[in-house]
Amino acid sequence: MSAALRIGVTGLGTVGGGVVKLLGQQADILEQRCGCRLELVAVSALEHDPDLDLSAPRWFDDALALTADPEIDVVVELIGGAEGIAKAVAESAIANGKSLVTANKALIARHGLALAQAAETAGVQLCFEAAVAGGIPILKALKEGLAGNRLSRVYGILNGTCNYILTEMQESGRSFAGVLQEAQALGYAEADPSFDIDGVDAAHKLAILTSVAFGCPVDLDALHVEGIREITAIDIAYAAEFGYAIKLLAIAELTERGIEQRVHPCLVARNAPIAHVDGVFNAVVAEGDFIDQAIFEGHGAGRGPTASAVVSDLVDIARGIRVPSFGLPVAALQEQPLAAMLDHVCEYYVRLMVLDQPGVMAEIAAILRDESVSIESVVQRGRAPDEVVPVIIITHDAGEAAIRRVLDQFSQLEVVVEPPCLIRIETL
Amino acid sequence: MSAALRIGVTGLGTVGGGVVKLLGQQADILEQRCGCRLELVAVSALEHDPDLDLSAPRWFDDALALTADPEIDVVVELIGGAEGIAKAVAESAIANGKSLVTANKALIARHGLALAQAAETAGVQLCFEAAVAGGIPILKALKEGLAGNRLSRVYGILNGTCNYILTEMQESGRSFAGVLQEAQALGYAEADPSFDIDGVDAAHKLAILTSVAFGCPVDLDALHVEGIREITAIDIAYAAEFGYAIKLLAIAELTERGIEQRVHPCLVARNAPIAHVDGVFNAVVAEGDFIDQAIFEGHGAGRGPTASAVVSDLVDIARGIRVPSFGLPVAALQEQPLAAMLDHVCEYYVRLMVLDQPGVMAEIAAILRDESVSIESVVQRGRAPDEVVPVIIITHDAGEAAIRRVLDQFSQLEVVVEPPCLIRIETL
Repeated sequence: MSAALRIGVTGLGTVGGGVVKLLGQQADILEQRCGCRLELVAVSALEHDPDLDLSAPRWFDDALALTADPEIDVVVELIGGAEGIAKAVAESAIANGKSLVTANKALIARHGLALAQAAETAGVQLCFEAAVAGGIPILKALKEGLAGNRLSRVYGILNGTCNYILTEMQESGRSFAGVLQEAQALGYAEADPSFDIDGVDAAHKLAILTSVAFGCPVDLDALHVEGIREITAIDIAYAAEFGYAIKLLAIAELTERGIEQRVHPCLVARNAPIAHVDGVFNAVVAEGDFIDQAIFEGHGAGRGPTASAVVSDLVDIARGIRVPSFGLPVAALQEQPLAAMLDHVCEYYVRLMVLDQPGVMAEIAAILRDESVSIESVVQRGRAPDEVVPVIIITHDAGEAAIRRVLDQFSQLEVVVEPPCLIRIETL
Repeated sequence: MSAALRIGVTGLGTVGGGVVKLLGQQADILEQRCGCRLELVAVSALEHDPDLDLSAPRWFDDALALTADPEIDVVVELIGGAEGIAKAVAESAIANGKSLVTANKALIARHGLALAQAAETAGVQLCFEAAVAGGIPILKALKEGLAGNRLSRVYGILNGTCNYILTEMQESGRSFAGVLQEAQALGYAEADPSFDIDGVDAAHKLAILTSVAFGCPVDLDALHVEGIREITAIDIAYAAEFGYAIKLLAIAELTERGIEQRVHPCLVARNAPIAHVDGVFNAVVAEGDFIDQAIFEGHGAGRGPTASAVVSDLVDIARGIRVPSFGLPVAALQEQPLAAMLDHVCEYYVRLMVLDQPGVMAEIAAILRDESVSIESVVQRGRAPDEVVPVIIITHDAGEAAIRRVLDQFSQLEVVVEPPCLIRIETL
């Protein structure tokens, strides 16, 4: 390697702009810390902030041409998207013998394994610290800091948009729709928010986290994914009354039945550390046989934190740190049995919107009894004959298959006027 | 390097025993993760748990002889103490061209700089992840994960014994002495607890953390250190009433006046993330220009977590990861101006035990006025003529020099029957 690590950045949106800014602003300390300069020599983008100082790097209209430039050591891919130009840039950079740094979780969740294999073959690095939990150096922590542990569970709040919405709902008592609208106005949620609020973004991150934590290949299709659209102010209020907060958690767990990977809203006890992670913050909890538990919290998105993560990968490369992309060489990643979601067992929170009529409770109780689902408590506050009221049921441990049959039957009751809302109670 | 990293462990107490157990129990995954075996080839100790399986490694009665063995690549020092045999083992290992891994915060706080210089000269590694915050990989996070940031403040709960005592006092309303006794019975506090409760242990860790965070030489003598002996149940109760928890914090901060390094009890707002770090848990908060804030939480001591940290250093060495001990080469560490504690400015909590007599408040108020210390609130609950009652004063921002003059004058008042208790209010 020359006295400088020569960097080409493709994509100059929020994160790309942040990386350019960071490399300029911290050039002196980065050189001290790495023992060589981190030099931005080339950029390529469709558009960029006009305030960005791009006087030094060469400009490429064609991102693929940038990846072929022999004067570049590392390509940074910040274009986004699992396919198309982002994937082509990644593949081409590696094929041209350059290390690749990316913040692209969709790309890594879909094609990370093939890219890591290609990088190993080419003898270059593939790094994606920024793809999971933004500014929190969680992949490095799992691969290096906690390398002496067998991990049993890794879970966290991986989507700041959802956490912001749930926190605001909790603090203000407002509706999902109202808070979402506000989040969009504030730039915390996209115009089309489905990628975040349906759990897809968290799923991409969890798939990567699972592979790194358990040494298995990334398998996005193995995940059970639910979002937060169904959560109402009523649920938030009842959860609080029972001593819980509602969080969208992403959970990877080694069970006797294999690995569970699931993203869904959870009731978490108010005294669990993760219950206090509010607003746009992310957090990851790692549980292992020697550390017991370690918790990592910070900004999961945004220009500065994501740029910090991208640059930490560049620093590793400049320092000659070589750790396999997923913690193990691709050939050593082992397929593990997948635990079927239908076999999952936990306590459940169920909300039914029912017509307040005599006999409703008996019908509900009979369905639960027939499916052998044991009731911990049932609450129906107040009386409002013939009006719609919420009935909240907390179950003891029950199987997912049974509770789904229960919900189907609830849905068919004439007195139940909305689809039931099911939230799992997570023991943390 | 051979196909195995050959390890010699000196000291087989709690942590040493944990390291031996970990290396045995996780041999398979460590080999996978490092691409070579981590082989325990030699041990030396004065005594050890008879249950420890020591059938494989060679035994050395003399730890110094172990450090000279040509069949060893890395020496692990887990003897403890800043001087004597621990220091001799560290120096000898490095002089013999072996990397050194240690969990010894006193050694590193006192002699880390000289040892790092010696290691650089010898071309070997000096690693001490376990010396700060046990199982939390905080040094790696600061040196590598957050390497793109200029940090402005790093603070945390670095002593689990103090945090356990303060948490128990808060939850039970009991006295310091009572809870300390219980902590000793449970093994959370030593028979002679002064090292922990006087803040010395936290000071050692903070001195190391400061160097890594700000790129300056370790300077243990630059720290202002106070312990928790003076905290009473009254203080815990009033703090809670005002919306605060009391925590022993270790704080390193870049100010306009230079670097502040201080360990002392603090009032922290109940909604600050660190206020929820309870019991024996440790936590470190890092604030930087790109990440904003990242929080790391976990077990700061104990066999498993400390062994996990020691082995993470061994994994780094086995993988060929070479990062300077303090984040920068010793020659690049820069002396920075030290901010004098007397120039520190903050809000203060002051508790006076006074005889309930007419005119007391006027005397107190006059002293504060004469030192230009502005009062935010004064509370004296209830009346008990001629008995001793607590008076709690919360000040606005004031200088340390002024508040100390105030306390001196308070002490001289006839109605003040105990030394005043001063706790700083930390803005987090």
